[in-house]
Amino acid sequence: MRPSPPELLSVLSRYQHIQAHHDHPFVTLTFAQSLDAKIAGHHGEQLILSGKESMVMTHWMRTMHDAILVGIGTALNDDPQLNTRHLPPLPNNERHHLPRPVIMDTRLRLPPTCKLLTNYQNGRGRRPWVICAIADDAEWHQRKLALEKAGATVIQIPLPAHGSQLPIHTILRTLYQRGIRTLMVEGGARIIGSFFAEFASGRMVIDTIIVTVSPTFVGVEGTGYGVQLHSGKTPAFDHVKTDLVGRDAVMAMVAL
Amino acid sequence: MRPSPPELLSVLSRYQHIQAHHDHPFVTLTFAQSLDAKIAGHHGEQLILSGKESMVMTHWMRTMHDAILVGIGTALNDDPQLNTRHLPPLPNNERHHLPRPVIMDTRLRLPPTCKLLTNYQNGRGRRPWVICAIADDAEWHQRKLALEKAGATVIQIPLPAHGSQLPIHTILRTLYQRGIRTLMVEGGARIIGSFFAEFASGRMVIDTIIVTVSPTFVGVEGTGYGVQLHSGKTPAFDHVKTDLVGRDAVMAMVAL
Repeated sequence: MRPSPPELLSVLSRYQHIQAHHDHPFVTLTFAQSLDAKIAGHHGEQLILSGKESMVMTHWMRTMHDAILVGIGTALNDDPQLNTRHLPPLPNNERHHLPRPVIMDTRLRLPPTCKLLTNYQNGRGRRPWVICAIADDAEWHQRKLALEKAGATVIQIPLPAHGSQLPIHTILRTLYQRGIRTLMVEGGARIIGSFFAEFASGRMVIDTIIVTVSPTFVGVEGTGYGVQLHSGKTPAFDHVKTDLVGRDAVMAMVAL
Repeated sequence: MRPSPPELLSVLSRYQHIQAHHDHPFVTLTFAQSLDAKIAGHHGEQLILSGKESMVMTHWMRTMHDAILVGIGTALNDDPQLNTRHLPPLPNNERHHLPRPVIMDTRLRLPPTCKLLTNYQNGRGRRPWVICAIADDAEWHQRKLALEKAGATVIQIPLPAHGSQLPIHTILRTLYQRGIRTLMVEGGARIIGSFFAEFASGRMVIDTIIVTVSPTFVGVEGTGYGVQLHSGKTPAFDHVKTDLVGRDAVMAMVAL
């Protein structure tokens, strides 16, 4: 029998069809957290919170999206691969769909030696897209050149008049224009918080949330994500399914 | 067949026997939280986070403890009953074990008209114990008298030399001396935080934790509990079992 994703993820395929947008991708926000809602340690230090079974589920989820977005904090702290390992082989040497890695990296801090780029060089990952702010100094040009030489596509987006953060909705529109129809947002804390904040401001930038809760406490020193919600709209998400995956609980919700 | 508690709670009966102490009760810390680790709304406002099935489980849990402890914040905000409703009837008109309500109420703010006292007056609950600091002014004596007239037993405990909080370990010792062998701590946020803090300071004041996680977000305005942990001891709790109860996930852990 052809291996297939865990049943919980049928939520995704179902809603990806129902909730297709016309100017931005269908967005799945997904992260693993402790009971006390921490997704990393002190100063964002990487923690392995979820069990092996949930990790396999995350890799299945990756096969179901055109692209994966992470923040530069996660890219620097974890040096992630964002590809689809740990999955059972498909018949006839068919390969699992590999998502496009997208890094939100306002000031172009991604090292050209990161795994995302070396994996691309070795044919083990797609060409990463690095989204940054528009800048024009010599040092910045040098960093851009080095990243492009290592294989990255650098995409520039104007910063808003007030603010130092790349606007989520502009990023989403840009990704859509480049053919991304389904986007998985994997973290870290700051990116997750930004998506929640943008959602709270009334923009539909989240379609589905899949959270893995691990039966552990990280403590107040850990890194949490802040959830801002519409003040007049509680709950903002409708629960679809909760499953046990190993010792973790995985909860799937859709935006209302 | 005689109705019995959900299987997850066998963790309790098992560990209550193994981990009996000789000077303080076996403590079960239990609470319902949102995904973003909030247990109440803005300023501690009561939220019904968990589903009906988890609520029934909480009432089963109450039958398995000699006493239930809550803070005065919860007593004032929620006016709880802390008895065992919503359970299937037992054969031969047998009644479910009713736990003793214990309120941590440093300054004796509990109203004599609260449900805990009217339930006691009507035979629907045990006589509540109110734990307070030692004071000696006329107004305080009046409040004490009114509570005692309404049926409460007022228990005075000295405040520490530095600090305005009743010391958890003294309360536990006092409860043990009065025959309480198993204590369920139901909240609110401040009490839960105090137990975690005391635990982090090296005192074994938590034996089991049973957390109900509801697939919802409360948002940054909500009331969370802070988890302090031993810096050198992570994790401090060992996961025993996770179950789905309705749409909630219930996780049971024991202290290491």
